[in-house]
Amino acid sequence: MTAPRNTPVPTRAHEHGEEIASVVDAVRDAAPLTQCLTNAVVTGFTANVLLAVGASPAMVDSLEEGPIFAGVADGLLINVGTVDAATVEAMLATAAARATAGRSWCLDPVAVGTLPVRTKLARDLLEYRPSVVRGNASEVLGLAGEAGSGRGVDAGDDVDSALDVAARLAERTGGAVAVSGEIDAVVSAESPTLRIANGHPLMTKVTGVGCALGAMVAAYLPVARTPHLAAAAATAALTVAAEDAAQRAGGTGSFAVELLDALARVESETVAANLDLR
Amino acid sequence: MTAPRNTPVPTRAHEHGEEIASVVDAVRDAAPLTQCLTNAVVTGFTANVLLAVGASPAMVDSLEEGPIFAGVADGLLINVGTVDAATVEAMLATAAARATAGRSWCLDPVAVGTLPVRTKLARDLLEYRPSVVRGNASEVLGLAGEAGSGRGVDAGDDVDSALDVAARLAERTGGAVAVSGEIDAVVSAESPTLRIANGHPLMTKVTGVGCALGAMVAAYLPVARTPHLAAAAATAALTVAAEDAAQRAGGTGSFAVELLDALARVESETVAANLDLR
Amino acid sequence: MTAPRNTPVPTRAHEHGEEIASVVDAVRDAAPLTQCLTNAVVTGFTANVLLAVGASPAMVDSLEEGPIFAGVADGLLINVGTVDAATVEAMLATAAARATAGRSWCLDPVAVGTLPVRTKLARDLLEYRPSVVRGNASEVLGLAGEAGSGRGVDAGDDVDSALDVAARLAERTGGAVAVSGEIDAVVSAESPTLRIANGHPLMTKVTGVGCALGAMVAAYLPVARTPHLAAAAATAALTVAAEDAAQRAGGTGSFAVELLDALARVESETVAANLDLR
Repeated sequence: MTAPRNTPVPTRAHEHGEEIASVVDAVRDAAPLTQCLTNAVVTGFTANVLLAVGASPAMVDSLEEGPIFAGVADGLLINVGTVDAATVEAMLATAAARATAGRSWCLDPVAVGTLPVRTKLARDLLEYRPSVVRGNASEVLGLAGEAGSGRGVDAGDDVDSALDVAARLAERTGGAVAVSGEIDAVVSAESPTLRIANGHPLMTKVTGVGCALGAMVAAYLPVARTPHLAAAAATAALTVAAEDAAQRAGGTGSFAVELLDALARVESETVAANLDLR
Repeated sequence: MTAPRNTPVPTRAHEHGEEIASVVDAVRDAAPLTQCLTNAVVTGFTANVLLAVGASPAMVDSLEEGPIFAGVADGLLINVGTVDAATVEAMLATAAARATAGRSWCLDPVAVGTLPVRTKLARDLLEYRPSVVRGNASEVLGLAGEAGSGRGVDAGDDVDSALDVAARLAERTGGAVAVSGEIDAVVSAESPTLRIANGHPLMTKVTGVGCALGAMVAAYLPVARTPHLAAAAATAALTVAAEDAAQRAGGTGSFAVELLDALARVESETVAANLDLR
Repeated sequence: MTAPRNTPVPTRAHEHGEEIASVVDAVRDAAPLTQCLTNAVVTGFTANVLLAVGASPAMVDSLEEGPIFAGVADGLLINVGTVDAATVEAMLATAAARATAGRSWCLDPVAVGTLPVRTKLARDLLEYRPSVVRGNASEVLGLAGEAGSGRGVDAGDDVDSALDVAARLAERTGGAVAVSGEIDAVVSAESPTLRIANGHPLMTKVTGVGCALGAMVAAYLPVARTPHLAAAAATAALTVAAEDAAQRAGGTGSFAVELLDALARVESETVAANLDLR
């Protein structure tokens, strides 16, 4: 029997879209305490993004305090965007404590592949099996030891060119890999690869937007049913909010402000209505 | 003789309110050079708040430079929001130099009580007798060794529940203790406890607003007659400006921007007219 | 033969103005990868300024990564605004690597002259011959060992009072010296001293505007024909954009946002039309 006219047939994509979108409100209800060991450039913006989406940020990032806090925080982000000998030690000890506690965390391998210290660090961190790895295509290739063409924090590679490598990485960690780009992809062993076509070019013209996505994934992980869903929901919320913000912005400065305002009002319903899954 | 109709009887609260408010213009006239040893998340926002209220910020925070500068800066803030072995050493040496110079300073015990390294540090810093301690109820309880229910930087305790402990802390330092919350309180041996009911919930949705209050207290201390007045005036200026900003804001991002604009135009007259003392 | 009426006679100043202004579009075309070792207060704002003017920022600033990256980055800024033992070591090693690579870089001697550690550091860095030194008059005097009257990051001295010292400094480095103030000056052995009268007082009420100029100079150096032109073009773009931003701003917070928006749209044509050379 065919469906009567005028009754839309729910597609798999739509159903999935609604489950993804539902995480956005659930995070606001749970207000997850989210620890961030992140780079010195984006600490303030990251904390403001987390507050806007309803999480409670805690930038507890030293060797002395990071590992202790990792046992109690709901979410954890480790972002290797600025590293020195002290941060390397703090990040490894915190990831180890998190793994011992058996809790979720997100790794953001900023500019990995082009700089030896952070590349070794990020690969060592993989041993603690991050629930989600979030990076651009060049960083995902770099993390996996493939020769990419990244230049600093900018991707020189296509999202699609990194999907096979991302799938192998996801198998190795047992979690998901979120590859950011013009069309974002989430890859894991548990679910079919998901592509999200929302977003706006202004996202690449404000520092820390990619890093903020990593932090959102960290906050969404303790709330979402799976790492795949956490990565998809965080990507969906950020990119849908970015489209809203871009319409109101007069340039890169006001886009950053409007993005926080848009994230502060984004809800499951808006995300479900605007999500462009491919 | 009773006052004629239509002539308002000046109450004690109003008179106090005008003295508090007068500090706001005095700080703009004095432009106090204000040294900040603060956490990595809020350095930029803190500096912008100090510039907006007419102070001159100087983030001179290393072991090598902090103690030297503490001998010449007009104001000094020590905020333990992100600490490691190096910052612990720098903060203790700077506080010691400040105490030797016999000058005012403000301690902000961010998340003290829940994390051992910063809790020990903040208690050690108390030996150098901060003119004002500024924190939320959980932090004030944690600093005093009472079991609070803070969670990271968020207060889990009521302002009123911390007032007795704050009074004992103020006796010990010989200064004032400012407890931030829905209604802010300033406690000291010298004056009756003051409650300020201004402010807006958006203040808790932007990172660094509490930290900015600590910095403002540090800047107001060298100008105000007493630590009690400095804490009250800084709280008054910030919370009155926050009400102004909240009316213009469309979300958390624009609230942060509007707050700086509101602080840049706040004057003694506006504060006196809007201050809600309890 | 005299020029016919109504035909403006191109003056030397105008021709120079057009060459200066042309660098602004050239930087957008080249998107120079610009490494910054800068102070902890302004990292985020600096990165956003660089993105707005079309450069690609990379805050690679540790001893472990800085020197390696200095061999490949198009531009390099070293700003001594917050220094400790570790940053001193990282900055010296990075400048040495840059000098070995024979590539341009910009030194920003923040608050040099008033604090011993950074003063020694900045003078040691001079040995690696920065292509441009960018500072206010007090910092330029302090760097050269002259007694200025700076107070923290604020200039206590006049731009004109520092021009002779700036000229001797430029001879020593073989590059240019940009002295910031109400009227900015660029001094070098290669070209006559240039004065730019654009700008707005709000530039001194937002943290990091001077530091952002240093970063812009670093990004403009690999694109401009000479250090003199790079310093002039960066100063021109920033001060012309600041005039645009000030007209739209309602205070210091919105000025910072509007400045980024104005920088994101500033073009050679606008700069040429508005540049006020003296």
